Amino acid sequence: MSEIAVVIPAGGGGTRLWPRSRRAIPKQFLDIVQPDRTMIQVTVDRVAPDFVPLSHVYVVTSERHVGLVREQLDIPRQNVVGEPLARDSAAAVGLMAALIERRIGPDALMVVLPADHEIRDPNTFRESLRVAAATAQQDYLVTLGIHATSADTGFGYIQRGESLHADSSPALHVKRFREKPDRVTAQQYVASGEYYWNAGMYVARVGIFRALFQRLMPEMEPLLVEMAAVFGTPEQEVTFARLYPQLAKISFDFAIVEKAERVAVIPADIGWSDVGSWSRLAELLETLADQEGNVTFRHPHHVIDTKDTLIYAPDKFVAVIGVEGLVIVDTPDALLVVPKERCEDVKHIVEKLQTEGRHDLL
Amino acid sequence: MSEIAVVIPAGGGGTRLWPRSRRAIPKQFLDIVQPDRTMIQVTVDRVAPDFVPLSHVYVVTSERHVGLVREQLDIPRQNVVGEPLARDSAAAVGLMAALIERRIGPDALMVVLPADHEIRDPNTFRESLRVAAATAQQDYLVTLGIHATSADTGFGYIQRGESLHADSSPALHVKRFREKPDRVTAQQYVASGEYYWNAGMYVARVGIFRALFQRLMPEMEPLLVEMAAVFGTPEQEVTFARLYPQLAKISFDFAIVEKAERVAVIPADIGWSDVGSWSRLAELLETLADQEGNVTFRHPHHVIDTKDTLIYAPDKFVAVIGVEGLVIVDTPDALLVVPKERCEDVKHIVEKLQTEGRHDLL
Repeated sequence: MSEIAVVIPAGGGGTRLWPRSRRAIPKQFLDIVQPDRTMIQVTVDRVAPDFVPLSHVYVVTSERHVGLVREQLDIPRQNVVGEPLARDSAAAVGLMAALIERRIGPDALMVVLPADHEIRDPNTFRESLRVAAATAQQDYLVTLGIHATSADTGFGYIQRGESLHADSSPALHVKRFREKPDRVTAQQYVASGEYYWNAGMYVARVGIFRALFQRLMPEMEPLLVEMAAVFGTPEQEVTFARLYPQLAKISFDFAIVEKAERVAVIPADIGWSDVGSWSRLAELLETLADQEGNVTFRHPHHVIDTKDTLIYAPDKFVAVIGVEGLVIVDTPDALLVVPKERCEDVKHIVEKLQTEGRHDLL
Repeated sequence: MSEIAVVIPAGGGGTRLWPRSRRAIPKQFLDIVQPDRTMIQVTVDRVAPDFVPLSHVYVVTSERHVGLVREQLDIPRQNVVGEPLARDSAAAVGLMAALIERRIGPDALMVVLPADHEIRDPNTFRESLRVAAATAQQDYLVTLGIHATSADTGFGYIQRGESLHADSSPALHVKRFREKPDRVTAQQYVASGEYYWNAGMYVARVGIFRALFQRLMPEMEPLLVEMAAVFGTPEQEVTFARLYPQLAKISFDFAIVEKAERVAVIPADIGWSDVGSWSRLAELLETLADQEGNVTFRHPHHVIDTKDTLIYAPDKFVAVIGVEGLVIVDTPDALLVVPKERCEDVKHIVEKLQTEGRHDLL
């Protein structure tokens, strides 16, 4: 099989996990799920060294977080790419494809893995990646599909088509990608049994990524090539600063994946969770719950007549009386209290703070 | 009129205002209602210098809080009495009566005022005290009665009798004192219009206080006299340490007031509030409430879809989404979240911490 490079886009802001996740240290750089191991570290642990060597792991992130990546990950310096400004995932993935084409060549396989997801079964995950890699060798853009167990409106959905092969490979054609649906549509998807959640994990030959950008993002394409050529040279800073603002601000899913042909999905039963909000984190931590469903995070707290409540306050004693379904998040300078069903609205607090210029709290 | 001494018993623990009120600094020593002025300071401000000179204000408190009293109040050192251990209010009031008898004499009037109540109308309050003092000159034990506006089960009640005088004095005989009643009884009291809340404020000649202790607490009486005799001398420490454990642990209301004859009540419409719990404090602060009834204490916070909630977090930014009727209290090492109707249960948290020996949090 070809050489494999794992690319971890880690430019997200994690605003729905405010106030723990901050601009200076977004959630992927925090030990928010596992003690003493950050989400990006766990992401790397899952693939290196058991799937690729550490030297084949790449990270693309905001320039301001390059130092954090170097502190947290023991990967080569030249594998860490800092973006001078945020341009969404198409730019990040496209730049890395151009860079890896220069470094290794168009036949390398490139695996894109988000930095901020939880996967409970890393063995099965690596097995799924191997199947995906084998499928990608046949010039497919391959994604992992997570069995849709609830009508979640926070994810994109993948409609499966026919089997790719007559043999026992689990790979399937993708019939269609669907944007985040409304509740009723999501319920129909789940009922049909034909849909997977799109976890944003992709595998393809670098040459396939490059061809897709050439065809679907022709304005972006030469800029990506120019940046890849100067990366690591004295010209990098000036060139990146000049070209990055010209890159389209669009997601890789929307710009490329949804318009690609030859797309395959590998159903992956890997214990996957998005850690996108406090209520999702609460679900993820439910193995820690007491008999009333309360989760207290890394600190002994006191609860009286309280149910189904997440107390995330690593540095403080918390007493809670007579509440249900609440999330309480304490940090040294900010405190959040929100019912689980309103956790998506945390982003509005962050927006309000942005409007007010409260950079101390962002 | 006789010389007047104001005695402020300030030995309370304020446990229902945990986590702001702590053993080291209970609520009466905190600026919990008015900015930059503690409750005991405000208590003194109400009476000195407009009712008595500062030199006539006395405080009896726990030995450990004598330093706090001296820091916060500009009263003579010999007016501050430290109790080596807590023996409830009968001991505190009895000791002060014995002490003031020695200092000024039995004809002095002694006014007992709790350190931790809020009074919105200090002018009317002083007017009520003057009426009480005039009544006390006629050898009555006089209390101020707060018009009972709701069927509160947290207070003692005073049933009024006939007018004391034929003239226009508002003073009334007290028919009976009633312990904290159950809800139905309290409703009957309020409906009858014959009841006042007992705010624990008393005025009488020192000689009357002394006679009541001699008659009703004959075992305690000689110990109080012995302690008063050595107060301020080198023998004080040893004598207090020896005698204090022998004093009965009983409230002044229960031991003396309920059994006294010649008791009068002055109806006092003075904007009085007990500041006994977070929900009562919330009521007291409702002039600060936004249109949805939320009170945020001395700090700008963000609330979304939130009603009737008190956020007491002077040193932290708090974001609250989608809750109603909650109290949120943040301190550097402890956080409390409780619905208003459960605020009385805060004491159970404190009891639990006591059982566990969590002195750091008490």
